[in-house]
Amino acid sequence: MKACVLFSGGKDSSLMATILDRLGMDVELVTVNFGIYDSWKAAAESAKALDFEHKVLKLNKKIIIKAVEKILEDGFPNNGINYLHKKVVEKVAKKYPVVADGTRRDDRVPKLNIDEIRSLEDKNDIEYITLRGMGHKTINRLSARLFKLRKIDSKLMKTSDYEVEIRYLIKKIGEKPESYFPPSHYQTQVIGWK
Amino acid sequence: MKACVLFSGGKDSSLMATILDRLGMDVELVTVNFGIYDSWKAAAESAKALDFEHKVLKLNKKIIIKAVEKILEDGFPNNGINYLHKKVVEKVAKKYPVVADGTRRDDRVPKLNIDEIRSLEDKNDIEYITLRGMGHKTINRLSARLFKLRKIDSKLMKTSDYEVEIRYLIKKIGEKPESYFPPSHYQTQVIGWK
Repeated sequence: MKACVLFSGGKDSSLMATILDRLGMDVELVTVNFGIYDSWKAAAESAKALDFEHKVLKLNKKIIIKAVEKILEDGFPNNGINYLHKKVVEKVAKKYPVVADGTRRDDRVPKLNIDEIRSLEDKNDIEYITLRGMGHKTINRLSARLFKLRKIDSKLMKTSDYEVEIRYLIKKIGEKPESYFPPSHYQTQVIGWK
Repeated sequence: MKACVLFSGGKDSSLMATILDRLGMDVELVTVNFGIYDSWKAAAESAKALDFEHKVLKLNKKIIIKAVEKILEDGFPNNGINYLHKKVVEKVAKKYPVVADGTRRDDRVPKLNIDEIRSLEDKNDIEYITLRGMGHKTINRLSARLFKLRKIDSKLMKTSDYEVEIRYLIKKIGEKPESYFPPSHYQTQVIGWK
């Protein structure tokens, strides 16, 4: 069965894809993009290095604009990112019978709550799968063993997280992304199998 | 790395074991038994059919006696089973660096909450892994594709769930298990690979 894994090129979504692939599912990696910035490129590279099928799904700018409005209003990114992720999951749920992402047990955002998950599955007659059975220790250990990894400074905007287009949009409208996100942190990109 | 999967011979714990095995972990299936009834036999059969290493871990009767006391007091099994499961997980956490079980997103019992999980991991310096990223639809579909399955009437006491020894103990002390558990339901035993 075809399964869409929402893919950033990071270790969480790579591990999710690996699990479903090894259980015999027909995995397609999907990176969403809102036409603000070509942030999907890192994910495309990672997907190629792992030899998975990869698609970029262009979604309506309105979604990210609304997410950024929320972030500016709140002064912090959590609700905006959650809103964005929920919209993204709803979109891909119209296209695939199985939708998965790399959200883990210890993540706070993005995260659908159990009622949102059940409603998503029932309304669209799909399955939604996450990494919520695993904590960060397990995911770090497994991905260090499975994947070649590269650390990337988030400032460089070279990953495919939602954060990149959000930061770009915030800058574009004359605000400072640093006021809403931690000034600089490291993200991990998967660059191949070990 | 050695990973203990708490194993009943059912599809949830079999799927958990399969995932960890296919991620390259050294899986050991463990079925606990309190010396009340030889309910571990079904799990041993399933483990053999799947060609996984299997151990029976004998635990102190006091644990199941206390669980049964809770069940009789409450009039329903949830708290007693949760208590039992928590004790079991704590015991195996002393012996293995990774402890996994087949608890799923939609299970209500047995289930450790997030604080219990973090405390378990930190206190014992272990990883705890579950199937909580998956709902029943996903687990049913995957296990139907991976495993040969057999349905078993719970009345026959031929599975290796906690419920079997609990029912046996309740009967032994002159009470009716049917007053505390649904009178008859079907459980699934894994009897091989497809």
